[in-house]
Amino acid sequence: MQADVNRAAFDRLLICGVGLIGASLARALRRASPAGIIVGVDRDGRAAARAVELGVVECGLALEDIPAVIREAALADMIVLAAPVAQTGPLIERLRPHLRPTAVLTDVGSVKGSVVAAARHGLGERIDRFVPAHPIAGAERSGVEASTAGLFDGRRLIVCPLPETAADALARVEAMWRSAGAQVETMTIAEHDRVFAAVSHLPHLVAFAFVEAMLRSGEARRRLEHAGTGFRDFTRIAGSSPEMWRDICMENRLALLEETDRLGEVLGELRDALVQGDAETLRAVFERASHARLSGVIGE
Amino acid sequence: MQADVNRAAFDRLLICGVGLIGASLARALRRASPAGIIVGVDRDGRAAARAVELGVVECGLALEDIPAVIREAALADMIVLAAPVAQTGPLIERLRPHLRPTAVLTDVGSVKGSVVAAARHGLGERIDRFVPAHPIAGAERSGVEASTAGLFDGRRLIVCPLPETAADALARVEAMWRSAGAQVETMTIAEHDRVFAAVSHLPHLVAFAFVEAMLRSGEARRRLEHAGTGFRDFTRIAGSSPEMWRDICMENRLALLEETDRLGEVLGELRDALVQGDAETLRAVFERASHARLSGVIGE
Repeated sequence: MQADVNRAAFDRLLICGVGLIGASLARALRRASPAGIIVGVDRDGRAAARAVELGVVECGLALEDIPAVIREAALADMIVLAAPVAQTGPLIERLRPHLRPTAVLTDVGSVKGSVVAAARHGLGERIDRFVPAHPIAGAERSGVEASTAGLFDGRRLIVCPLPETAADALARVEAMWRSAGAQVETMTIAEHDRVFAAVSHLPHLVAFAFVEAMLRSGEARRRLEHAGTGFRDFTRIAGSSPEMWRDICMENRLALLEETDRLGEVLGELRDALVQGDAETLRAVFERASHARLSGVIGE
Repeated sequence: MQADVNRAAFDRLLICGVGLIGASLARALRRASPAGIIVGVDRDGRAAARAVELGVVECGLALEDIPAVIREAALADMIVLAAPVAQTGPLIERLRPHLRPTAVLTDVGSVKGSVVAAARHGLGERIDRFVPAHPIAGAERSGVEASTAGLFDGRRLIVCPLPETAADALARVEAMWRSAGAQVETMTIAEHDRVFAAVSHLPHLVAFAFVEAMLRSGEARRRLEHAGTGFRDFTRIAGSSPEMWRDICMENRLALLEETDRLGEVLGELRDALVQGDAETLRAVFERASHARLSGVIGE
């Protein structure tokens, strides 16, 4: 490892999307090595400019500055797609004609199936240069201002290599994330989307639904005045970005529907138990859940 | 207020149930005034003995020590029922024949409708001495060991006076809780049970159901390994006591069913939107919920 300290995982890195994840990756890579140039592109030109001001990237471009973006696409040996997942397809279509043959393309999306479909469509036979990836990190805040060099320290980076993925491309993406502080773990695309539908996407859907139901009750304000710690914890994720979660839920909707229906089945059983005064069913379900929650598998 | 500093809200206080709430109330009242004797009774004789050891109460009795409990019931001028809600009825039946005519009886239950029904049944015409109350406080831990004198500081104490409740009884209970640090607020029984079904009981039901659904997925351990902060916040309350929440859910089941069905309706709409690829419905619901969650009404 020591020999790698001053070697960057890239010569010229293009990060498309300098939000929390893209900008934190830039900071983490800069922390790991002073070598290599990092360029940030963003739909929002002010965010790109701000990333330069903050020293997050050497160069910042607005996505609409097409000649400059094309030039950077042609220079980069590593390209990270860190824009919202729904923009993956259009971004790839735009960059594809200009990419160097040896350049590696990777993403950070919370959904992998739909991203891979878009990449296959956009890249064609060059799909071997694409490495689907998902860093498991986030924060309450978003945007370049919230970025930190330590966001990925000790967190997982899930890679979902395709049958076609070139070994050197995979190795370079894994090395990049390790130098950013992450631990690399491999999953299939189907497993990734199933697991994160269950532990991330469905909780968000339910938290949003829960707050919406309260708003429809006709006495929302009165109720919210009495919200305690439990309620605040339970609904905290309902404060997340509506656009981002709309995209994630839509892009992973098959896996999400399966999880939604599994939860609906349990809720239906508990509802029946309430109607029938069946305290034993409630107790048995609560007992299993409480035991699992406290067993340490889930953590604090 | 200054004149009241050394006056206790009671001469002899009997607390039935020296768990987190009962023992914390004893500590808070002792902090407010050295005057008055506090006696603790518990189903679990060891908890009662421990409360004495910890200096929480002057005297600790096991509930099964019937002669001693009867003697204390006859001496007390204030009796707080702080056992699980399902025990309210049996406790009142046991104490009722021995109570002094001027003694005040109050409770701390999370559900008020069923507690009041039990109190009416057990107390008969002496229902005027009963003051339904619910301190909004709790902690991750439970039991006498977790009790603290500051648990109620700045927290709400909801009182739900009945048409028959004697003014002096109400005033004494309110004064007791104020001296324990709480702010008193009045609700009707129906409003209390509706509001807490929505902000407390349903979140617990859903969190338990959520963990149960994950356990049924057949890859629970794999999924839980990938649970992030959002998931942990969302399911934290599923670590709560199964027995306590079974009782609360059963005792408040009519209001809870109404809230469960309202949530089910929203979840059904979101499910339909996923099936139909209707991103706009998802966005609109997520947007409203996120705005409400972030508007500061719910708090952090």
